[in-house]
Amino acid sequence: MEGPTVRMINQPLLPHRFEVVDLADHHATAASIRTMIVRGAGAIGATAGYAMAQAALEAPDASFHAFVGEAAERVQATRPTAQNLFFAVRAVLRAVEAEGSDLTRARAAAMAAAQEIADDDARCCEAIGRHGAPLILTGARVSTHCNAGWLAFVDWGSALSPVYVAAREGRRPFVWVDETRPRSQGARLTALELANEGVDHAVIADNATGHLMRTGQVDLVIVGSDRIAANGDVANKIGTYSSAVVAAANGVPFYVAAPTTTIDSDCPSGEHIPIEERGEEEVCYTWGWSDDGVFARVRTTPTGSHAHNPAFDVTPARYVAGIITEKGVVPASPEGIAQVVRR
Amino acid sequence: MEGPTVRMINQPLLPHRFEVVDLADHHATAASIRTMIVRGAGAIGATAGYAMAQAALEAPDASFHAFVGEAAERVQATRPTAQNLFFAVRAVLRAVEAEGSDLTRARAAAMAAAQEIADDDARCCEAIGRHGAPLILTGARVSTHCNAGWLAFVDWGSALSPVYVAAREGRRPFVWVDETRPRSQGARLTALELANEGVDHAVIADNATGHLMRTGQVDLVIVGSDRIAANGDVANKIGTYSSAVVAAANGVPFYVAAPTTTIDSDCPSGEHIPIEERGEEEVCYTWGWSDDGVFARVRTTPTGSHAHNPAFDVTPARYVAGIITEKGVVPASPEGIAQVVRR
Repeated sequence: MEGPTVRMINQPLLPHRFEVVDLADHHATAASIRTMIVRGAGAIGATAGYAMAQAALEAPDASFHAFVGEAAERVQATRPTAQNLFFAVRAVLRAVEAEGSDLTRARAAAMAAAQEIADDDARCCEAIGRHGAPLILTGARVSTHCNAGWLAFVDWGSALSPVYVAAREGRRPFVWVDETRPRSQGARLTALELANEGVDHAVIADNATGHLMRTGQVDLVIVGSDRIAANGDVANKIGTYSSAVVAAANGVPFYVAAPTTTIDSDCPSGEHIPIEERGEEEVCYTWGWSDDGVFARVRTTPTGSHAHNPAFDVTPARYVAGIITEKGVVPASPEGIAQVVRR
Repeated sequence: MEGPTVRMINQPLLPHRFEVVDLADHHATAASIRTMIVRGAGAIGATAGYAMAQAALEAPDASFHAFVGEAAERVQATRPTAQNLFFAVRAVLRAVEAEGSDLTRARAAAMAAAQEIADDDARCCEAIGRHGAPLILTGARVSTHCNAGWLAFVDWGSALSPVYVAAREGRRPFVWVDETRPRSQGARLTALELANEGVDHAVIADNATGHLMRTGQVDLVIVGSDRIAANGDVANKIGTYSSAVVAAANGVPFYVAAPTTTIDSDCPSGEHIPIEERGEEEVCYTWGWSDDGVFARVRTTPTGSHAHNPAFDVTPARYVAGIITEKGVVPASPEGIAQVVRR
């Protein structure tokens, strides 16, 4: 955030073009979450916090609390599954409400709370790296799904943070990058991060993960999460569940890395996590860089066919070897969650 | 085959453009298999048979058998996993060799053998439909992977044939069509077939199959096969293995449909089936129809990243509820295979 403006990377254009967009008000910032200019658990949380700070700056004195309350509804309506979104909105609302009728202090508190969400996210992800890195032995081959690296957070990332720490410690990890259709966050973003970090990797079709596990080419899986229920069930990008089931069938440990801000302690199990359904065009088309050097899309499906596009799935806790949090690695169980959850 | 020319649909352009290519000699026909102008177990087999018939027509009298033998090597070298390819080449070679030094009869025998491979394929697929259709109850939701319909065979197809028969019998099946990256045969070809046949369906990202199974939205899976080992292990398009494992975890029956020409009785188990590795560009790019109405590709991966592209995987027999052949549905076991294998 610079002054009243939120500035962020336009992620759909990556890796082909690096473009920063300026979001002048909380409407524009909320829209950037909905249209996925920004995506990723921690990045959505930080953006939602800044959107609420913008709303506090924009709110007229005469209707300050009503305006901020409406903004909270607007920001929360952008993505239904992402827990960090709800955590961030509530954190800023609490900070504002604590100042009562002193609006100057309320606006300052909103700004400070938003900044603290972002700073906390970066600190948590750095700690996730330290706690998760010992799981990655020398030369380990790590499978990951979607993008849960620094582009998905404020810094470091969740699933990729242990990889980065292991790489800096000289253990030369190798990463199998699931392409992650339909939006190709693995092929576009995780590959870009790993190339930038100098971590050896190969992009694969999502279909290839199981074959690599069955033929002994994967040592462990680390994925991120969009919401973790109180019993340890995990919502994450569509395809995560299949990866977990096939990992279990092949004795490959499957870890979830997430800051504790991703835990929804009000949610008893994965069955209660709302799963976002997105538009069919994401499946019918693929976006990328054309041979003419422009950002373009191609359609694969016939015009007479429709598509169905659930964006997330739920992995039951029994498939999860452990949850790597900023407070340490805990079992995916009610007891494990209770050890680390923020009250 | 029309005269000495093999004519076939240019499948990479489907569903966006229907184009028939003329292949003037066995070199061109073999190349069409390698470049996947034609693909699909039965269609590859029929094409290989016709390529061998072309070779018999082209072979000079003075070096007839050497020429045909070299052609056999050339055709067999196009795709390593597809069993129907090897079956067809050997069938034409046997027919030629049975005529000894009478080259007029040998050429006629090659033509007749090639035609019989194609006719046998169509008959087998029609019978697979009859044997498999009773597995599809009214309103059943069928999951399939890749394309194993009439485009992959001479007619009817393997996995889709029971669907077509059930639809004609009025049981209104619904099909979840796995997109099937990297070459999108599901999104392009299976969707096109089902739209043409009036069968209700939805295309999904390959990542979504597991979620649909876990949430009770899939009643059975039917896939095709590129090679079946003597113990019932099945090679098929990459991603089939994951679908089978997740189906088993959710109690969803997983069937493989294939003519007995796909059985490799010399292959004791799936571990002995060679898995084709294809070029990384299939993963780095997606091909389809641009908004400008031209066949184009877009790149999703950064230029600094490489990809890995195994084209098939092996599903162990224990995950297979049954193999639907032209002789009936048999268990995926040495005993089941022995009941139907051609000697």
